[in-house]
Amino acid sequence: MSMRLGKAMGFAAAVGLGLSAASVSAQDTLEGIMKERGLTQKDVLAAAKTYVPTGGRDEFVAFSSGGQSGQIIVYGIPSMRILKYVAVFTPEPWQGYGFDDESKAVLAQGRINGKDITFGDTHHPAISETNGDYDGRYLFINDKANPRIAVIDLADFETKQIVVNPIMKSEHGGAFVTPNTDYVIEASQYAAPLTNEYVPLSQFNEKYRGAVTYWKFDNAKGRIDQSQSFSIELPPYSQDLSDFGKGPSDGWSFTNSFCTERYVGGIESGRPPFEAGCSQKDTDYMHMINWKKAAELFKAGKTTKINGHDVITMDTAIKEGILFLVPEPKSPHGVDVTPDGTKIIVAGKLDTHASVYSFEKLMTLVKNKDFAGKDPYGIPILDLKKALHLQLEVGLGPLHTQYDSKPCVAYTSIYVDSQVTKWDYCEGKVLDKISIHYNIGHLMSMEGDSVSPDGKYLVSLNKLAIDRFNPVGPLHPQNHQLIDISGDKMELLYDMPLPLGEPHYAVAINAEKLKPHVRYKVGWDSRSDSESPYKTRPGREKIERKDGVVHVYGTLIRSHITPEIVEVEEGETVSFHLTNLERAEDETHGFAMYEYNVNLSAEPGKTVSATFKADRPGVFPYYCTEFCSALHLEMQGYMLVRPKGMKATEAKFSEGQAYAQGDYDKQVKTNVDTQAVIDSVVAFITSRNFKDFPPVVALVEDATDQLNFAADAKKKSEDFATKQDWQNATLWAQQWFQYQVKAADIGLRAKTFLEQNGAVEVKQ
Amino acid sequence: MSMRLGKAMGFAAAVGLGLSAASVSAQDTLEGIMKERGLTQKDVLAAAKTYVPTGGRDEFVAFSSGGQSGQIIVYGIPSMRILKYVAVFTPEPWQGYGFDDESKAVLAQGRINGKDITFGDTHHPAISETNGDYDGRYLFINDKANPRIAVIDLADFETKQIVVNPIMKSEHGGAFVTPNTDYVIEASQYAAPLTNEYVPLSQFNEKYRGAVTYWKFDNAKGRIDQSQSFSIELPPYSQDLSDFGKGPSDGWSFTNSFCTERYVGGIESGRPPFEAGCSQKDTDYMHMINWKKAAELFKAGKTTKINGHDVITMDTAIKEGILFLVPEPKSPHGVDVTPDGTKIIVAGKLDTHASVYSFEKLMTLVKNKDFAGKDPYGIPILDLKKALHLQLEVGLGPLHTQYDSKPCVAYTSIYVDSQVTKWDYCEGKVLDKISIHYNIGHLMSMEGDSVSPDGKYLVSLNKLAIDRFNPVGPLHPQNHQLIDISGDKMELLYDMPLPLGEPHYAVAINAEKLKPHVRYKVGWDSRSDSESPYKTRPGREKIERKDGVVHVYGTLIRSHITPEIVEVEEGETVSFHLTNLERAEDETHGFAMYEYNVNLSAEPGKTVSATFKADRPGVFPYYCTEFCSALHLEMQGYMLVRPKGMKATEAKFSEGQAYAQGDYDKQVKTNVDTQAVIDSVVAFITSRNFKDFPPVVALVEDATDQLNFAADAKKKSEDFATKQDWQNATLWAQQWFQYQVKAADIGLRAKTFLEQNGAVEVKQ
Repeated sequence: MSMRLGKAMGFAAAVGLGLSAASVSAQDTLEGIMKERGLTQKDVLAAAKTYVPTGGRDEFVAFSSGGQSGQIIVYGIPSMRILKYVAVFTPEPWQGYGFDDESKAVLAQGRINGKDITFGDTHHPAISETNGDYDGRYLFINDKANPRIAVIDLADFETKQIVVNPIMKSEHGGAFVTPNTDYVIEASQYAAPLTNEYVPLSQFNEKYRGAVTYWKFDNAKGRIDQSQSFSIELPPYSQDLSDFGKGPSDGWSFTNSFCTERYVGGIESGRPPFEAGCSQKDTDYMHMINWKKAAELFKAGKTTKINGHDVITMDTAIKEGILFLVPEPKSPHGVDVTPDGTKIIVAGKLDTHASVYSFEKLMTLVKNKDFAGKDPYGIPILDLKKALHLQLEVGLGPLHTQYDSKPCVAYTSIYVDSQVTKWDYCEGKVLDKISIHYNIGHLMSMEGDSVSPDGKYLVSLNKLAIDRFNPVGPLHPQNHQLIDISGDKMELLYDMPLPLGEPHYAVAINAEKLKPHVRYKVGWDSRSDSESPYKTRPGREKIERKDGVVHVYGTLIRSHITPEIVEVEEGETVSFHLTNLERAEDETHGFAMYEYNVNLSAEPGKTVSATFKADRPGVFPYYCTEFCSALHLEMQGYMLVRPKGMKATEAKFSEGQAYAQGDYDKQVKTNVDTQAVIDSVVAFITSRNFKDFPPVVALVEDATDQLNFAADAKKKSEDFATKQDWQNATLWAQQWFQYQVKAADIGLRAKTFLEQNGAVEVKQ
Repeated sequence: MSMRLGKAMGFAAAVGLGLSAASVSAQDTLEGIMKERGLTQKDVLAAAKTYVPTGGRDEFVAFSSGGQSGQIIVYGIPSMRILKYVAVFTPEPWQGYGFDDESKAVLAQGRINGKDITFGDTHHPAISETNGDYDGRYLFINDKANPRIAVIDLADFETKQIVVNPIMKSEHGGAFVTPNTDYVIEASQYAAPLTNEYVPLSQFNEKYRGAVTYWKFDNAKGRIDQSQSFSIELPPYSQDLSDFGKGPSDGWSFTNSFCTERYVGGIESGRPPFEAGCSQKDTDYMHMINWKKAAELFKAGKTTKINGHDVITMDTAIKEGILFLVPEPKSPHGVDVTPDGTKIIVAGKLDTHASVYSFEKLMTLVKNKDFAGKDPYGIPILDLKKALHLQLEVGLGPLHTQYDSKPCVAYTSIYVDSQVTKWDYCEGKVLDKISIHYNIGHLMSMEGDSVSPDGKYLVSLNKLAIDRFNPVGPLHPQNHQLIDISGDKMELLYDMPLPLGEPHYAVAINAEKLKPHVRYKVGWDSRSDSESPYKTRPGREKIERKDGVVHVYGTLIRSHITPEIVEVEEGETVSFHLTNLERAEDETHGFAMYEYNVNLSAEPGKTVSATFKADRPGVFPYYCTEFCSALHLEMQGYMLVRPKGMKATEAKFSEGQAYAQGDYDKQVKTNVDTQAVIDSVVAFITSRNFKDFPPVVALVEDATDQLNFAADAKKKSEDFATKQDWQNATLWAQQWFQYQVKAADIGLRAKTFLEQNGAVEVKQ
């Protein structure tokens, strides 16, 4: 495309050799490559199963916890290429997250007792569900360190909300959703007083508590409604993971635990450490909660307010028959409801078995009040053996279970043995084992915790990488290993280093369910999902002093920031509001300024703001940080801060370079040539059914903008020429050309799209 | 390995099926996969050329700018897997960067006029060189937004130093190093007063300035020595990229520029924008500076102090004959010295040519004072035509050039045409072109800007991804495309999405040159590269109040934090100092605490600190954030903050679980069985030449630690048993077992390593 543009722009045509066809010469055969690179036949098959050619799409998209990075990692399967880090709990400048005023407001929701928290220890992502199936609308993720849940909208992959758990001081067992995403569950981990008081550890058994919180999700608004959310008080066991029932078990939630010994360590004072006292008993407890009934109790007002939050006390929960305990093997890690909702699989990490509970048997025990006893807090305990469908030896240190599309087939991660065991949970038999490197934690099959798992692939989320990759210093990446589960035997396909953060759990969705936007409505505040009060249209840019703040209503478009010069007085608070006027996909502009920690990302249509106090006199350059166009480096400006009390003077620029009529004439000739290319492109586009292609419609709108700007610059140029002001006439002729170049570039991108996507000629 | 351990631990042996052999069945043939996945023969060859099997190593390691993320991205070539994000200018919690006191001190070096800057706009990484060749010791990277240079030590991939440019307000042309890394260059971008004063833009030509800074690098200390660094004042042209001479041109540096029109925009007040006024002239200037002579001038005191920094003024530079200008085609982006140092290649981004300057011709012009004129500041201008070796039409919008291992072969990125042109810069002919997607900025060949490029691969650093990958919302990843340059024709191999940040430039080094550590000496402060004053040995943990601060001298080891309980009074300042006692590779422990924004990463041997004010009473759980061992979740503790004035009480724990003699006996039996496994492993290891394997020596040391701890716990257990205190006897027996398990686990890891790495039996 650009060769034609180049020609019209007065440049000699470049020699266009294009992409050469694949030449499979002697040294370029598969055999030759295998020999040179030491690949086995199995390696080549794995390569072919994972390679995605240029422009291709991955079949599944995984959302992985970013661990202590506080972010979400998005990657494609089977290529295992990371597509994006989504900023959630941690400020991240590329995305402007925690830098623009709009996202600062989201992070501020996550303050703990008034303190800014600039990280998160993310653990378990959950995709929103409709009828128990992933629907690709929202993603939820928890923070273990500071109990919080974040809501990410998959329409734009942005974090929209952070809610702070009002009673927990530590959590682990979230986020998991009910089959229609009515509630998101969060379960505590290390027990603590539910109030914010100091309570000595000598009162651990009496005053320290666990809890589960059911966050009400407003599906219409896409936000958690804290006023409709509630918690249930639990004993000071270390609650661990949770899952919601589905199908026959819909209405119940399951949360397991460790350290039901209620042991408090203190190695520094001669007591054995937590690890000894928390792993002494052979069993811990799975908590079974009837959340639908709990929601009714909440609505009926049968709650106690703690820190202003509605809590159903243990006593109420016991009295109302919504809370039960079931023994489970020693220190379990996962509690995973089967796709059909009839069974719950738990594995004790200090055991070798996976235990399959029958939901039907559990309900029979509950119905018949067939209890094996009560725990110290009076909670009824169901009998383990009576509740079991079966137990199977799956390996040493079993943790988590995911499901296949094939009935009754499950995969369990085996931590100590560093293996994945494939087994039949209906019949109770091991089907296959595969070794992984090293020490698997969670594992993930495709949509593997939904009502309809997709099979095909399994990812082993390993906790150690050790020597798997090129060394990068004492801090190692993690290793996600992709395994082909389409056949009878599992086959290892790929080792993927995770370069930032230690993921815990991940979820993968069929890529076709995701339909994110490529742009916002112009003037959009993406964090509140509403039109920004600072939306600015082209030509309406202004600087306005109001209530002690200098508001800069600015715009960004290839290749200038308006305004280019902003002058304020020392001590003034300045608020830049910038709207990206582009519509073309991927035409993001950035905005960074010296010294004031200003760094914004404005995707097409977005309005972002940065507010700061100009606290010292000086000169502060600003510029676009995204390489947006050929003249990206020239997309710059200056903020000047006058010393307090100094009067503003009219700037008289001494021109660095003088232009004469010859310069003007030369530029106009180039512009006229360029217009001929543009006209031909316009003729091509308008003769095709371009309105059937939304990306092209957006490009045409962008190009039309640029042509309108060009017409305006042309007029200015000609007006100055009439006055024989060759300086301004030449500069405006150059700007007219710059608008033309952008219009042509956008137009040619549209033309190429039409050519490649089968547009047809239409009658005029 | 673990099956044997499992057996001895009293668990039934798991069924070990291991990794199944590759079964190339009918549906698992290469042809079948190609058909199912729609792969061409070319795709399969590309897959085979890029796939790295499990445990394999990449041939090259790339260090890419992380753009506005403020980080460095490390990835392997040809697999294009990201191995690590290294935190540089932006706090990053996974690495504890900006969270531990030690790294906060590094970030604090980067403050701008006292203000914290929590991002960087990284552009150009540079690997340290010896005799012009990459040596893999250090990495340097610049920040465009707030002019700074960071030093990363490749011994541990950590940022050690940030230096702030004392006179610039914007920069671009760094970091590049002299052939023996004596100096690191940084060049300004947008002109501004060199002082921090307010100067109206009407005085742009007179008082705004550019500059280049030569940072002296102390190779012995691995730090920039600011006192031995200096700058040269330059005209208010927008200086762009830089490069150092080598071979015959060693001693000179080259910095190009755009907007030598010295145009100041102001579209909001009716002036054409910067983009118009900055692209009107047909040529800009390359600055040629004799830096060796400049260093002598600095040593001779021929400098002026600006903001306390030594600056050689333009007048001095002109008078002393160290500064010259050479015209270069319109708005160039790259200035790249050839491997042999005889030529400099510049391409104007608004032109179609690459211009090859002859260093010999340039020197002849300088020597003969054969000047074409002077710029407005009196700097001699050399004649373009007389300085050229040749010019070649390479495509529309040429930017940067990298070199092949083959003589005279270069690759130039073509922005507007979205291509890479391979050409012969000696003879002046185009050899090949390849299309990329979309809009390439920089490009990188292997060690392609050193004296001895390695050829083989080229990476195209594209500025837009548009539709190359699965959509992830309005903000897109970048796309680095890997190209095979081993043959006559370039071949596209791989599209790699960049998930975080917009890289500008990248450098790739032969992987064998990198030999990073896997651990630190115990008690090491990695940021200052010295023993930490807070180093704590096992058994020496203590809590000490000193100068108004509660110092917690703690340790981390599988699987407990010592101390586990810390009690302080409201209002006290608390400083946790934690030493990771592990030696095994990848045995990192983390440390996070509720509410106080505490999140640390302690790699093996490292000592890290976190200091904060305990400003409210309450209970604050803390825990290990890296999944380090089977009992990772139990690696926890509590900080309790008593209300101000409340007296500390002796904690009397009410046990949550009681143990009797039977519990003790059962545990001891398990422990005795476990010891048998350990003894057999020890016998195996000591019968082999394990001392020849450093990783095994480290593992043996770790295992010995655990066995010593086990012996201590055993003694405690037995002492309590003697007193018939079955509670404590059982708990200590459990802890004895926990130490045994870890010793066995580490020992088996060592045994496996010896088996897999050809250890031989040695005579006792």
